[in-house]
Amino acid sequence: MRTVTWNSAGPAVEVIDQRLLPAELKVLSLASAEAVSAAIRDMAVRGAPAIGAAGAFGLALAAHQSAAGSGEAMLHELQTTAALLGRSRPTAANLGWALERVLQAGRSRQLEGPAAVREAIHAEAQRIADEDVLVNQAIGRHGADLLHDGDTVIHHCNTGALATVDYGTALGVIRAAHEQGKAIHVLVDETRPRLQGTRLTAWELQQLGISFDIITDGAAGFYLRRGEVAAALVGADRVAANGDVANKIGTYMLALAAHDCGVPFYCALPLSTIDTRLASGEAIAIEERDPAEVLDLKWGDQRVSPPGARARNPAFDVTPARLVSAWITEKGILRQPFGPSLAAALEGTLPWASS
Amino acid sequence: MRTVTWNSAGPAVEVIDQRLLPAELKVLSLASAEAVSAAIRDMAVRGAPAIGAAGAFGLALAAHQSAAGSGEAMLHELQTTAALLGRSRPTAANLGWALERVLQAGRSRQLEGPAAVREAIHAEAQRIADEDVLVNQAIGRHGADLLHDGDTVIHHCNTGALATVDYGTALGVIRAAHEQGKAIHVLVDETRPRLQGTRLTAWELQQLGISFDIITDGAAGFYLRRGEVAAALVGADRVAANGDVANKIGTYMLALAAHDCGVPFYCALPLSTIDTRLASGEAIAIEERDPAEVLDLKWGDQRVSPPGARARNPAFDVTPARLVSAWITEKGILRQPFGPSLAAALEGTLPWASS
Repeated sequence: MRTVTWNSAGPAVEVIDQRLLPAELKVLSLASAEAVSAAIRDMAVRGAPAIGAAGAFGLALAAHQSAAGSGEAMLHELQTTAALLGRSRPTAANLGWALERVLQAGRSRQLEGPAAVREAIHAEAQRIADEDVLVNQAIGRHGADLLHDGDTVIHHCNTGALATVDYGTALGVIRAAHEQGKAIHVLVDETRPRLQGTRLTAWELQQLGISFDIITDGAAGFYLRRGEVAAALVGADRVAANGDVANKIGTYMLALAAHDCGVPFYCALPLSTIDTRLASGEAIAIEERDPAEVLDLKWGDQRVSPPGARARNPAFDVTPARLVSAWITEKGILRQPFGPSLAAALEGTLPWASS
Repeated sequence: MRTVTWNSAGPAVEVIDQRLLPAELKVLSLASAEAVSAAIRDMAVRGAPAIGAAGAFGLALAAHQSAAGSGEAMLHELQTTAALLGRSRPTAANLGWALERVLQAGRSRQLEGPAAVREAIHAEAQRIADEDVLVNQAIGRHGADLLHDGDTVIHHCNTGALATVDYGTALGVIRAAHEQGKAIHVLVDETRPRLQGTRLTAWELQQLGISFDIITDGAAGFYLRRGEVAAALVGADRVAANGDVANKIGTYMLALAAHDCGVPFYCALPLSTIDTRLASGEAIAIEERDPAEVLDLKWGDQRVSPPGARARNPAFDVTPARLVSAWITEKGILRQPFGPSLAAALEGTLPWASS
């Protein structure tokens, strides 16, 4: 079952509503680009690669619904729609990357008229979704070589099938190692404030039959210091040209703890997450979300924060490249220094360029 | 209002039930040493200094209720009770310290018979409680010199009046700076799993009129890296002879982030928290609590963890002394290297030795 799909009856973009898991597995049908944007903003669909595919399909929806009389007019409309979609999660690189790729496909057939643009855009969105699964499986294959039978690993946030179109990035690495017959135990960071670890990663690991324990984010350092952990694994929302990693809040502190304890810290990501326009992570825009995500927690039946208390809620942080042991991509393992390693990976033909 | 008091009608030990805050301010009346032990185990009373005073009063209760015919027989009974009380929170050093101090006071009058032992024990427990307030005020005075007008500081767990008999340790430092007219803004780590930051520290800061924002524990690194934070402040549950600090889970990762960002990391504690019998933090016993504290969180009305999910829940971690910029004690600021600094502090007359 894919997290993000196109339903030609409608048409509509269908996504698993991740806000309801693990209690309920419900598919949302999104009938407009505006609905896709809202689903991304409200985190019904989340995870950088999943958001990229959802955004691409959102543009395809807009193309299907457009009454533009020329290819040029349609692309003009779609550019506005792409800007709307792009704003729904500013930190995830894959969203802007997917939108630009879809627009580019449309532009290449602009002179053939609106039907051709519509067809090109739809085909490109579907290609992005299909490729994401292959890319993740490749990430899994490469990354699995870094894990060994009997390893305990720490994982932050959710980077599984739910965060992608299917299979997952960092969780895909764990899954691939598991599929190779290696026994892997996962310490699942609960990942405050939205608890993607407890709600989504634990649920996915249960489906996959992989052993795990949930821990609070602050307990990761405790287990790392005890020497019980072979590796820490995370995904990424945007990676700068120097290898700095923007990822779910708490990632930086996990990377520091792994580094202090001499435990490898791996970042698994499709190359589409890398934003080579940014020299370093300092330039990455960090989304700050509703303080209610921090404050509106219940413990028993009691709201825990005192009335009138304020909170701040940055959704991501930036982990400096120096703390990353390796970046696991579909083209292989990129090691320090990141720049030359990335250049070598990019010299090959990227999977989507060849399709 | 003190967190832990003796009520001679009864007699009983009265403690603020910290599990109900901030929704309800309720005083629990504990009529036996067993009830005190349960209140510590269940975290109705928490915070190393508060637990020390509660344990001491628990022994006084046992002395009052004892029918022993001789001082020796009474002390024999009380030693069993002290062992029971001591087991209720193994990590907090102040508990064992207070119990031993009270027993010692009883032993010194053993030959005078049970009434004298009872009186000595009661007086010593009361002295521990009274001194705790003075000790904390001294910690606050010394520590306030490290904070400046306009500073933003990060604080982990709860170390305020609630965690002590009154005034607080790390929060006492913030309070003392505030009382000196310095504007201090506090980033309050929510402190999973039991959310002492959100529930207790935020509530105390509201009472004191000190500005704050609650953040998730994982967000501390984000603010430290932005250069917005002047200091990180924590308390301690047990400190080894080399300066390693056992404190609430998550402290080690906060210390790493402060260190990586060049921000001072201060540990505020009464000298009674220092366990000179332990060479290093490796030897500190770490309590592991009920996984339900991690799993039983609600988000809206929905339990977040999937049915059948397991969790691990270490309550404390150990921060190596190398990450601590200074230890703030009632005798002044101890700097690196910790050993000689501590020896110099101990050479003076300790406040409780002179009383």
